[in-house]
Amino acid sequence: MFDNKEKTEIAHLGEFGLIDHLTKNIKLTQPTTLKGAGDDAAVLDFKDKKVLISTDMLLEGIHFDLSYCPLKHLGYKAIQVNLSDIYAMNGTATQVTVSLGFSSKFPLEAVEELYDGMLLACEKYKIDLIGGDTTSSKQGLVISVTSIGYADEKDIVYRNTAQEGDLLCVSGDLGGAYTGLQLLEREKLIYLENPNIQPDLEGKDYIIERQLKPEARWDIVELLRDVNVVPTSMIDVSDGLASEVLHICKQSNKGCNLYEEKIPIDPMTFDTAREFNLDPTVCALSGGEDYELLFTIKQADYDKIKFNSDISVIGHITEVSAGCNLITKSGNSHELKAQGWNAFKG
Amino acid sequence: MFDNKEKTEIAHLGEFGLIDHLTKNIKLTQPTTLKGAGDDAAVLDFKDKKVLISTDMLLEGIHFDLSYCPLKHLGYKAIQVNLSDIYAMNGTATQVTVSLGFSSKFPLEAVEELYDGMLLACEKYKIDLIGGDTTSSKQGLVISVTSIGYADEKDIVYRNTAQEGDLLCVSGDLGGAYTGLQLLEREKLIYLENPNIQPDLEGKDYIIERQLKPEARWDIVELLRDVNVVPTSMIDVSDGLASEVLHICKQSNKGCNLYEEKIPIDPMTFDTAREFNLDPTVCALSGGEDYELLFTIKQADYDKIKFNSDISVIGHITEVSAGCNLITKSGNSHELKAQGWNAFKG
Repeated sequence: MFDNKEKTEIAHLGEFGLIDHLTKNIKLTQPTTLKGAGDDAAVLDFKDKKVLISTDMLLEGIHFDLSYCPLKHLGYKAIQVNLSDIYAMNGTATQVTVSLGFSSKFPLEAVEELYDGMLLACEKYKIDLIGGDTTSSKQGLVISVTSIGYADEKDIVYRNTAQEGDLLCVSGDLGGAYTGLQLLEREKLIYLENPNIQPDLEGKDYIIERQLKPEARWDIVELLRDVNVVPTSMIDVSDGLASEVLHICKQSNKGCNLYEEKIPIDPMTFDTAREFNLDPTVCALSGGEDYELLFTIKQADYDKIKFNSDISVIGHITEVSAGCNLITKSGNSHELKAQGWNAFKG
Repeated sequence: MFDNKEKTEIAHLGEFGLIDHLTKNIKLTQPTTLKGAGDDAAVLDFKDKKVLISTDMLLEGIHFDLSYCPLKHLGYKAIQVNLSDIYAMNGTATQVTVSLGFSSKFPLEAVEELYDGMLLACEKYKIDLIGGDTTSSKQGLVISVTSIGYADEKDIVYRNTAQEGDLLCVSGDLGGAYTGLQLLEREKLIYLENPNIQPDLEGKDYIIERQLKPEARWDIVELLRDVNVVPTSMIDVSDGLASEVLHICKQSNKGCNLYEEKIPIDPMTFDTAREFNLDPTVCALSGGEDYELLFTIKQADYDKIKFNSDISVIGHITEVSAGCNLITKSGNSHELKAQGWNAFKG
């Protein structure tokens, strides 16, 4: 996607020149940032708040394919994926550090594209990019992001605190990122067979965007605060709904009933799954990368969220002995299994 | 170095199984850690202290060569390299997050070796490993570590605060890690030419250890506290003495005189450099990876450190117009230049 028209060799700049070049446009806006990039470590001040830290690594050929993933989108996504973890603690994200490894043959303009996407995500979510590392890589692009945020202790939401009777809720809709990926993979194969055929992604913007440019759900964290709901447990949907539901149940030592008919699936996701002869429910349960928030709330809080079209109640928490069950549209009950994305398989 | 006798396939465990397996032995001992691995983010409590964050990435084929770098040592070094950045701020390091990418063909026992080295470093320096990420890699071993620590605002030491007349000091000795690397590279070449020849590293333990198993200088931070010296500026020596001196001078907008004869070089480093027809001073100035602390102190503090054999006064800070000069043993003055290690060259 990056057209390589203008190429500046990074070796000319050297590591420090490159870091200076990339960081010179960074604006720090967070009052919690005392010192950003440029020293041995960044210095932050969270006063009496608790500090939240999360980290993720994205590797070329495993997590992304540069043949259909524009670098700017990739940068944007790398940040979103990490912020999502802070929001899943019901926290406010404030800073990120970014480490990049790329070939010394990677032109400066490509690194700038990637960085621009990162800074765009930071700007939109009011995040300071406070440091990191750049190095050459002999094989492919390597991205590691650490996100930092804060919360009052009483507001922090863990995975292991769901209670029997709590309602299981999810934000937005599911399965879109996975069906978007199927589409991109198909068009890539067609292109490889015949480079003259233009990719046919018309009318598929939503699910392509779900895959290439996800948005972490800070708006849901804010919305829940506004209506005065503190979830009893929460996790973000990175590996697929089934995997995340099982994390909450296992760590809380509880069971659940999850209703297939309640799982929110966008019509475009539904139709595209059908085109690929995929079960849309399976795409939602096992597809992953939707970066929605899955959370449980007390039944007493139901009235506060029931009219919000961006939150779906998809089931409830039961005692552990009842197991974790998927109740199908036809009314049958199946044991819920995680067939989530596993980077170590295949 | 890892003998591959017992092999357990990681794909059997899956990502979550692997994380459970690796993290089950982690003991949290830091009072600042409220919640370690196992949720979307770790939760830390630094009360009224400022928070320090630093991150580094190590890539196979760029930063290490598994043909002579044992995995346990590599794990140990990956942690030390990062703690060093927190100490260089005059802070107390408390936590690390670790992201690993490795081939799905990497046996579990190899990952355990690497992790054991990391946990050993953590235990020795009282650091909690509070989270991270593991993924398969098509690109060889990828290690990304973020280190976290704290300090009182008044104790934090930056790079840009050296003052004219300050004494330039360095801990330990320099050039050892680089000459150790030369030795390991030579033995690797000999081995590749004739696998029956045993490596000849006898009597070279110190410099081999400087390369493979460096120790971040927490003891120097403690020592300076004990004698009531707050450095006026500080940085750790990762890229070579010249590069670090220039960072301090450039960021402080000052010059310096650095005296060649004062640069601390261990006799083994000196002799080995000579064996390789290298100038020992150049090894110290440009070799890098020594992870000593370079710092400036007020002249008034000289008496407090002058009898400490682990600290050498190697020069002093001047006004910026005087430039950054290396005064050779013969009394000549040369402009100091950084020819430090540049991952984007060669």
